[in-house]
Amino acid sequence: MSNKSGNAFGFTVQARDSGARAGLLTTGRGTMPTPAFMPVATQASVKALTPQEARAAGTHILLVNAYHLALRPGVDVVREMGGLHRFMGWDGPVLTDSGGFQVYSLGALRSVTEEGAHFTSHLDGARLLLTPEGAVAQQEALGADIIMCLDECIPHGPDEDASRAAMERTHRWAVRCRDARRQVDQALFGIVQGGMFPKLREESARAIVAMGFDGYAVGGLSVGEPKALFYELARFTAPLLPEDQPRYLMGVGSPEDLVEAVAAGYDLFDCALPTRVARNGGVYTASGRVDITSAAFRGSSGPLEEGCDCLACAQFTAAYVHHLFRARELLAYRLTTLHNLRFYHRLMEQLRQAIQKGELQAYRQAFHARYVPAKEEARLEQRKRWGQRRPGLAGPRAPSAEDA
Amino acid sequence: MSNKSGNAFGFTVQARDSGARAGLLTTGRGTMPTPAFMPVATQASVKALTPQEARAAGTHILLVNAYHLALRPGVDVVREMGGLHRFMGWDGPVLTDSGGFQVYSLGALRSVTEEGAHFTSHLDGARLLLTPEGAVAQQEALGADIIMCLDECIPHGPDEDASRAAMERTHRWAVRCRDARRQVDQALFGIVQGGMFPKLREESARAIVAMGFDGYAVGGLSVGEPKALFYELARFTAPLLPEDQPRYLMGVGSPEDLVEAVAAGYDLFDCALPTRVARNGGVYTASGRVDITSAAFRGSSGPLEEGCDCLACAQFTAAYVHHLFRARELLAYRLTTLHNLRFYHRLMEQLRQAIQKGELQAYRQAFHARYVPAKEEARLEQRKRWGQRRPGLAGPRAPSAEDA
Repeated sequence: MSNKSGNAFGFTVQARDSGARAGLLTTGRGTMPTPAFMPVATQASVKALTPQEARAAGTHILLVNAYHLALRPGVDVVREMGGLHRFMGWDGPVLTDSGGFQVYSLGALRSVTEEGAHFTSHLDGARLLLTPEGAVAQQEALGADIIMCLDECIPHGPDEDASRAAMERTHRWAVRCRDARRQVDQALFGIVQGGMFPKLREESARAIVAMGFDGYAVGGLSVGEPKALFYELARFTAPLLPEDQPRYLMGVGSPEDLVEAVAAGYDLFDCALPTRVARNGGVYTASGRVDITSAAFRGSSGPLEEGCDCLACAQFTAAYVHHLFRARELLAYRLTTLHNLRFYHRLMEQLRQAIQKGELQAYRQAFHARYVPAKEEARLEQRKRWGQRRPGLAGPRAPSAEDA
Repeated sequence: MSNKSGNAFGFTVQARDSGARAGLLTTGRGTMPTPAFMPVATQASVKALTPQEARAAGTHILLVNAYHLALRPGVDVVREMGGLHRFMGWDGPVLTDSGGFQVYSLGALRSVTEEGAHFTSHLDGARLLLTPEGAVAQQEALGADIIMCLDECIPHGPDEDASRAAMERTHRWAVRCRDARRQVDQALFGIVQGGMFPKLREESARAIVAMGFDGYAVGGLSVGEPKALFYELARFTAPLLPEDQPRYLMGVGSPEDLVEAVAAGYDLFDCALPTRVARNGGVYTASGRVDITSAAFRGSSGPLEEGCDCLACAQFTAAYVHHLFRARELLAYRLTTLHNLRFYHRLMEQLRQAIQKGELQAYRQAFHARYVPAKEEARLEQRKRWGQRRPGLAGPRAPSAEDA
């Protein structure tokens, strides 16, 4: 197992299929299979679920946002409660995001200086400064198993010079994060940036890898660019990262994105999509996403998805879930969240098996033949409606913790 | 077991302590202990919970509102899905309310004629008529184990003549309900009315009992009158009902109300209070209700209530639940609901044990010595804020299914 920090962290590739990998990731919380999707527990809760329900759906590792917890309830409270795991009742591994992304996505950014990100709290308007050193200290105090460097994430749009400037600052901050570490029982991941420019992505990968981290993330993709460009850059960047360390594609994504990203050689993923879509009545099935609030489901006596092994499908009809949504019953949001997370984790399990059998290309073709993705225009429109989930895509709704 | 309908329904009193009773209630779904509190599953869902969670909290029987289901998703849909139990995934007994109460409480009433209640749907504005015969047919189609007569429920306020008129109509409707029955596998309960006048309560009890029902409910109490008057009327009416049949005190109540109502000789109760209070951050404890959103709980490392055996207290700290409420996380509402229902069911279990041991008076004294009720003014104020939960107490908020 590769390990740059002298802690329990490690990663082993068990099988390869073209560039894709089936691996085992080890933290102080045990060993888990990859590729793995990390549900987003923004504020130390996977929205609508208990940690036990997330585990039953197939969750091995959760993503928590250090930014949100630092503002509320405060890092001190979480530490006094025995750390993040005890606070939220989850004994599996946790990865914390550094908070840099929220500073942008919540629209609270005032300015980025060499010192760090100056911003205004979306909760109480307090003026705050998040430095690379502060981001590491916060994540160490929270007690996550994997922590992230503070990076400067930019949207789709800036030219090469602006993209280079953000990338170079990300590199300088990465060095400061690495040097700021005080605890050895956590893994620290570096983040590759570089905007939409392959040349910069290559330069960033070389620079970040040279610094020596426990794993490598690719950030600043799926931030509003066309899917074809996103896939091209993701495929271009993955092979630039070490073969024997985990690769994390940040903020990705839809089911079709995950299939492509696993094929490209990434191991870890996170996205609010399956849980947020669930709360809006969107239900994933093998043939695409359906809207359970549609009148078509009023008398539907089958489960949300035929053959699904999730807790919602085992117990309730689509007609009942439809009724709960129409009646705005709280149970509605839980049942679709349980289903969508199970759908995502089952997809990862199937991708892993396909890699182990050397059948990934066949699986991928079969997936795309049956799965109809949400239309790109619909995706962008929905993203706008949900608010400014991504930098550069400002929405009409006030920023809230629901959105980032 | 007494049985007026020739079905599986029955009731046995196992122990008495003064006027209070510990009994066993049998329906086609099995036998359950009384006194029993029925959580309210207004729209075929105990808000925020699965049926399994309600059972784990100690629920034996649920109350569902026929009115709401008739409007949405429609009685036909529920019947096509195999009836109420299969529709909502609950295999224990269900009591349906006839819908008369909602016609009033939702403020949708246009007029009451001898034919029935004419009202406007709060969902789509449709003009509807609910007759005694229609109420029975709806409840038979839904497939509940216990169904209720349609009654005319009035608030605290009307004089004796008006109270008598509503009572006499209730009696005529009760005869029509009894004669409208087509199914014998359900129990039908009659409802005693009579406003705030003991003379009328006595007259109503004699009339309804003479008609011969499977059980007897007392309605039109806890509708805005002072607690002392409510207790006085509840105590006065209970002994007027048959000793060997179940007595159901409708829409009651707070923990202190339940202690008094059980002591008065009632066996069944329902109220939205514990679940609604939960969703507003109110948490019941042995010493009274606390507000978990209060800053006092920010760093509270104990459970919601020391010694509680509910799922929320077993797994999470008060500080975490406090955080979830502050962050408006959906899990918050589930955890306090689990706790409050467990608190209510534990109270009923303790009252039952006290009756069986002949120690009810000691239990009652000990309860009142440690439990500080919410102040009456605070209760009335909160009721107003929640909307027009009870007839005659119009609130500022638009009527919704949350309120009745």
